[in-house]
Amino acid sequence: MSKYCFGVDLGGTTVKIGLFDPEGAVLDKWEIPTRKENNGSNILPDIAQAVLDKMEQSGIAKEDVIGVGIGVPGPVDNDGVIHKAVNLGWGVMNINEILGGLLKLPVKSANDANVAALGEMWRGGGRGCGNMVLATLGTGVGGGIITDGKILTGAMGAGGEIGHIHIVDGEPDECGCGNHGCLEQYASATGIVRLATRKLTSVSDDSMLRNEEISAKSVFDAVKAGDKIACEIAEEFGEYLGKGLAAVACVVNPEVIVLGGGVSKAGDILCDYVVKYYRKHVHFASRDVEFRLASLGNDAGIYGAAKLVLE
Amino acid sequence: MSKYCFGVDLGGTTVKIGLFDPEGAVLDKWEIPTRKENNGSNILPDIAQAVLDKMEQSGIAKEDVIGVGIGVPGPVDNDGVIHKAVNLGWGVMNINEILGGLLKLPVKSANDANVAALGEMWRGGGRGCGNMVLATLGTGVGGGIITDGKILTGAMGAGGEIGHIHIVDGEPDECGCGNHGCLEQYASATGIVRLATRKLTSVSDDSMLRNEEISAKSVFDAVKAGDKIACEIAEEFGEYLGKGLAAVACVVNPEVIVLGGGVSKAGDILCDYVVKYYRKHVHFASRDVEFRLASLGNDAGIYGAAKLVLE
Repeated sequence: MSKYCFGVDLGGTTVKIGLFDPEGAVLDKWEIPTRKENNGSNILPDIAQAVLDKMEQSGIAKEDVIGVGIGVPGPVDNDGVIHKAVNLGWGVMNINEILGGLLKLPVKSANDANVAALGEMWRGGGRGCGNMVLATLGTGVGGGIITDGKILTGAMGAGGEIGHIHIVDGEPDECGCGNHGCLEQYASATGIVRLATRKLTSVSDDSMLRNEEISAKSVFDAVKAGDKIACEIAEEFGEYLGKGLAAVACVVNPEVIVLGGGVSKAGDILCDYVVKYYRKHVHFASRDVEFRLASLGNDAGIYGAAKLVLE
Repeated sequence: MSKYCFGVDLGGTTVKIGLFDPEGAVLDKWEIPTRKENNGSNILPDIAQAVLDKMEQSGIAKEDVIGVGIGVPGPVDNDGVIHKAVNLGWGVMNINEILGGLLKLPVKSANDANVAALGEMWRGGGRGCGNMVLATLGTGVGGGIITDGKILTGAMGAGGEIGHIHIVDGEPDECGCGNHGCLEQYASATGIVRLATRKLTSVSDDSMLRNEEISAKSVFDAVKAGDKIACEIAEEFGEYLGKGLAAVACVVNPEVIVLGGGVSKAGDILCDYVVKYYRKHVHFASRDVEFRLASLGNDAGIYGAAKLVLE
């Protein structure tokens, strides 16, 4: 008899849901809106209904479902307690119990960035590596650490918050977290725009970047075209991210570091800038760590969520 | 029928061995010399003999011994393979298999700094905390990370190498690891002496420290006596170590950070200097982490080694 599991990636706007077999093949995937009104009280019932409807449509019996995994945008401890999800209007509650009660199925939950790392380990860029770091370079810098095949959750579910490692002293701008000088302020998409704007203001040299809207993409496109100023911006980005990841590697000694998120679409050239500074600053035991690009894109969350219930 | 386990802490000069009950009471402890001649080929046979002799003297039957745990000065992976122990003259070998073969008992091994962390978690300063960081401030800065009650080993057994997190740009002196600007260069006993010597050379102010041999102890004694220069040195030390531990906490989100090693004998005042900068730079999810002093001293290794076989 076939067995199934569901992976749910709960975001601020949409909920992605995937139906998987235990080997990690996606049999179906779809989205529903995230209804945040009334402190997000509809969200878990909506997810439960979507899963139950799919089971009915597909003729899947309850006893053939191993479980439902879910990644949520906030810190979740190992018991399934979310301590806060500001985006969703949620306070403290036990997701495993609530969603499990609605579904009458086993539910496991974890932080979305950590779940994405588990997904990349299972079927993506970190495939086959039980000791892995995922750095997600998007609007912010998220992280997920896998040690010995499992998510490093931490005491309060905030393991892998690598975007808030302090990297630069004397930074005048405030990070979203309230600190100054966090990795996220230099290595995220918005961080690269900040670095670029500062550089273009501080020097008068000619650059392709002066004629277009600055984004992480336009900076790395200019790097590929050999633009000198863009290359200097990329060096600065690489130095900060390389240093930050070297610190992470001194702590967890991974086998592979996977770069994901929108910024990673720049491709291998991005890794080159990071690896140079990583190798300079890391402990020799982690010097030969392999760098790879994430390969699951926006599906990393549903893969990782499904994997949660297979452990 | 009583059950027993042995904890072995293999150092460069002596091997400490402890006989424990499964609750962590030390029933006996003693030392033998570490014979490093002939590439350390006598070391494991000596340890085996010492354990077997003790069992015979104490009338302990083989079936009553749960196992023998051993902490070794080098990176050890989860299968018991040590990749190199320069101090001992060892190359690559599987300690669990070799020592287990000599003893005909289950053997588990791990890196000594990580084993000390496990000991402090089990019966020392981190008691009751399954998510813990131990920073050992001795000649160097060692580290051990416990997540979910287990040692964070890493891919090659080099997890917890927190002494080699890059902290300062432009450091002219080389660290023992070959890099420049590692945490160990500022937060170890020798690092504090370096900071003190630099400070005393760069300013002409009067200080108690000008009249005595500089050591981590003399610096913190002068801090306690209100010496202004010593306090400035302690601030610098606290800033570097606080920043480094904040980076570690962003990665692993611990419940408690334990400070051990010779430098930690300075006591609570040491924590005060570190905590101030830790809280400034850490992600808010780890801001309230508790700082404690290690309490097992040189016995942390035998405790942690015994705990290895009880897992």
